[in-house]
Amino acid sequence: MQNTYNTILTIFGSTGDLTIRKLLPAIEKLLKEKLLDDKTLIIAVGRRDYTDHTYLQFVEKELKVPLDTKALEPYLNYFKLNVEAIDDYVALKAFIDERSDENTRKAYYLAVGPELLKGIATMIGTSKLVEKEDIRSSITFEKPFGSDLESAQAINQLLWTYFDEKQIYRIDHYLGKEMIQNILTVRFANKIFESAWNNHTIKNVKIYAKETDTILSRAGYYDTSGALKDMVQSHLLQMLSLIAMEVPRSYQSEDLKNEKVEVLKKLRYDRKSLVIGQYDGYQNEPNITKGSKTETFVFFKAFVDTPRFKGVPFYLMTGKALEQKESVIIIEFEETSEQHKFDLPLFTNKLYIKIAPLDGISLTLNSKVPGLRNAVEEVDLDYCVACNAVGNLPEAYEKLILDMTKHSKSLFTRWDEIELSWQFIDQVKQDIQNKQIPLRIYKSAEELYSLIETMTGEKL
Amino acid sequence: MQNTYNTILTIFGSTGDLTIRKLLPAIEKLLKEKLLDDKTLIIAVGRRDYTDHTYLQFVEKELKVPLDTKALEPYLNYFKLNVEAIDDYVALKAFIDERSDENTRKAYYLAVGPELLKGIATMIGTSKLVEKEDIRSSITFEKPFGSDLESAQAINQLLWTYFDEKQIYRIDHYLGKEMIQNILTVRFANKIFESAWNNHTIKNVKIYAKETDTILSRAGYYDTSGALKDMVQSHLLQMLSLIAMEVPRSYQSEDLKNEKVEVLKKLRYDRKSLVIGQYDGYQNEPNITKGSKTETFVFFKAFVDTPRFKGVPFYLMTGKALEQKESVIIIEFEETSEQHKFDLPLFTNKLYIKIAPLDGISLTLNSKVPGLRNAVEEVDLDYCVACNAVGNLPEAYEKLILDMTKHSKSLFTRWDEIELSWQFIDQVKQDIQNKQIPLRIYKSAEELYSLIETMTGEKL
Repeated sequence: MQNTYNTILTIFGSTGDLTIRKLLPAIEKLLKEKLLDDKTLIIAVGRRDYTDHTYLQFVEKELKVPLDTKALEPYLNYFKLNVEAIDDYVALKAFIDERSDENTRKAYYLAVGPELLKGIATMIGTSKLVEKEDIRSSITFEKPFGSDLESAQAINQLLWTYFDEKQIYRIDHYLGKEMIQNILTVRFANKIFESAWNNHTIKNVKIYAKETDTILSRAGYYDTSGALKDMVQSHLLQMLSLIAMEVPRSYQSEDLKNEKVEVLKKLRYDRKSLVIGQYDGYQNEPNITKGSKTETFVFFKAFVDTPRFKGVPFYLMTGKALEQKESVIIIEFEETSEQHKFDLPLFTNKLYIKIAPLDGISLTLNSKVPGLRNAVEEVDLDYCVACNAVGNLPEAYEKLILDMTKHSKSLFTRWDEIELSWQFIDQVKQDIQNKQIPLRIYKSAEELYSLIETMTGEKL
Repeated sequence: MQNTYNTILTIFGSTGDLTIRKLLPAIEKLLKEKLLDDKTLIIAVGRRDYTDHTYLQFVEKELKVPLDTKALEPYLNYFKLNVEAIDDYVALKAFIDERSDENTRKAYYLAVGPELLKGIATMIGTSKLVEKEDIRSSITFEKPFGSDLESAQAINQLLWTYFDEKQIYRIDHYLGKEMIQNILTVRFANKIFESAWNNHTIKNVKIYAKETDTILSRAGYYDTSGALKDMVQSHLLQMLSLIAMEVPRSYQSEDLKNEKVEVLKKLRYDRKSLVIGQYDGYQNEPNITKGSKTETFVFFKAFVDTPRFKGVPFYLMTGKALEQKESVIIIEFEETSEQHKFDLPLFTNKLYIKIAPLDGISLTLNSKVPGLRNAVEEVDLDYCVACNAVGNLPEAYEKLILDMTKHSKSLFTRWDEIELSWQFIDQVKQDIQNKQIPLRIYKSAEELYSLIETMTGEKL
């Protein structure tokens, strides 16, 4: 007689980078903290010939950082499967059926490259590992979800053949980050911001995701993608939606997404503000074709045409090989109407929602310079989330895996969000081509910033 | 041929506590920082027989803390004067006339007890040390400025016989404190507060001046005064005016005072909220008469009936022998209208303007509890003015003396402010008598606080 589990999480791509570096460490931590119960089974699916034990040995070797595989071992089954062999899926189904009952929550996580996505999803559907009407089963995909609107629609069409939208979990791991989750609380749980969150009080919003890294070993994927598809379509537009959305009916998943989608519908960008760049040396990276036009940097000004945000510029920027690693949202408030009575120029108030590398909130205020002079200085009121939770701040994937096991979909993206964001990106891509937007080769971030400042008149 | 000075500051009461502990150290610092120019003369007026040098020796001995009297000596003249002898004032005038020309700024500082105030002022007037039409001369008084409306009016009537209101500097040393000066900047230079500074967004305002000290050696004065007259009439009502006033036409002295006065005109208090107390043991203090009814603690709720603040309670509290020394203004904002969507009770946002012992600003916000739980916590965004200016934060008296030499009256109180605040205090005093408000003997602050919380339903 087999054990029956409450939760069975099956991971495809168990020897891949994502599983080894992110998913297993997250699962180990959740198990240790008893957030996944004792009746949890992790099935690591792979093509190679491993036992549970030799698989974990392989993981340990690959990982190079301490992972308590001993803690994982009791919960883990390695399952050999050829992704193209339907019989293997049938066998996997039998294996799972033996270990589950009608209450078991079954989650299938496709931690595989985009080229395998359609094939595995089809097999999971045809082998009936997941059935449309089974609300206890779900299937999880990683981005990229397509490479443009058309390809995303094709994938989605296929998924909807086999699965219900409710069963589909599309991951944007940014949504699992501490401070992205905190945006709702900051916006809605604080009167001081609730009453200021509109175009009477907000002057502009900056959404930056800067990296110092180059493309590292991701040439294959990156060269077909670029900054717009890799970062803007997903992370940056998600952040923008959370900042710009109207007050949702509730903080439940569907109500939130309904409002986020409204933002994307009303989003437009200012083509004249668009700057794309490629870092100097990109074309010499291994596996990049000479003459590649892939952008590693993008900046533009966008607007959300709602009564709340009409006229407020949203500056979006992301890039590689920049001067610092920093993901941050900056809400800049209007000048006070009292400026004319002060002898000195005042600073604007700014709310920083700091996402990485350090999570935190800070607010800059004007304050009198201490002492006998009548002067004003900008001071920084800071709350460092990361500092207060040293070592305890969970990785995004812990939260996302936990939510998966709980059927909580708030932090996953719905199809219409994906659809609208691809629509937006396709438009930008088309403009780049049709309007021959120049690709600027940059040696330093500074060059780009001063160009943008000249173009927009905004200090970045 | 004598030197001619740009500034001559004459201090009456040069052997008193205020001069020794506050004024001379402030002057020494201003001289060292070159904020008072080289052509400044300090005349220390006293009854005793000192030379400049022996006077400073006496000061050093009394002070018990390091004071660089060497730095003071070149600028200081001791002048022997009997406060009741008109000839001595005439001699002082001759002494000053010899050392001044038509551009010399002459300031007379009465650092004396209230019983000497009228006499010295009359002598200064009749000896023509200060003449009404001389805009380069001024006269400075310390509080208490009267002990009720009638006595204050009598003093003022006398002053106006000899001096013009423009020449009269009434000191409330709280106004020289760093963070009190900062209130205007915080309110008006920050959009985030400018747009929130009204009864739609502000729930209540707390103005506290708590002391751990007992009356120490001030029995004589304190027993005839009490907390209402000593603290509320001056410091607390001044703070309230700065918080509640309308936007002034400019930040110039008269425009500011015009708006502060409007607040005092519209101020009313809720008699039912009034709590007065006397610390246990007060009647055993030296020089206090048994059976004294003097309050060492006072609390009440007040309202400012302006469109901006109508309905917002102002909680005023001050007392001796309390659990901590703290002067603070707390602006508590309303609950967010989103509260009903959160499972947990949220905290209100609070702006702390910290006046003493540490100067600073902090703002509390709701933020997501870091980690995997869906919970909200109150976090504190803090800016410590004192911490950034360690050792450099000037004492209130430095600022006030400096402003006196510059004819800058913003931080001094105008007669109508005094008049209206006495009117208010007299009303409270009358109510205490007529309505037989009980004087509560307290052993600990906690007793009073829990009583007040029961009465008002407010957590202090």
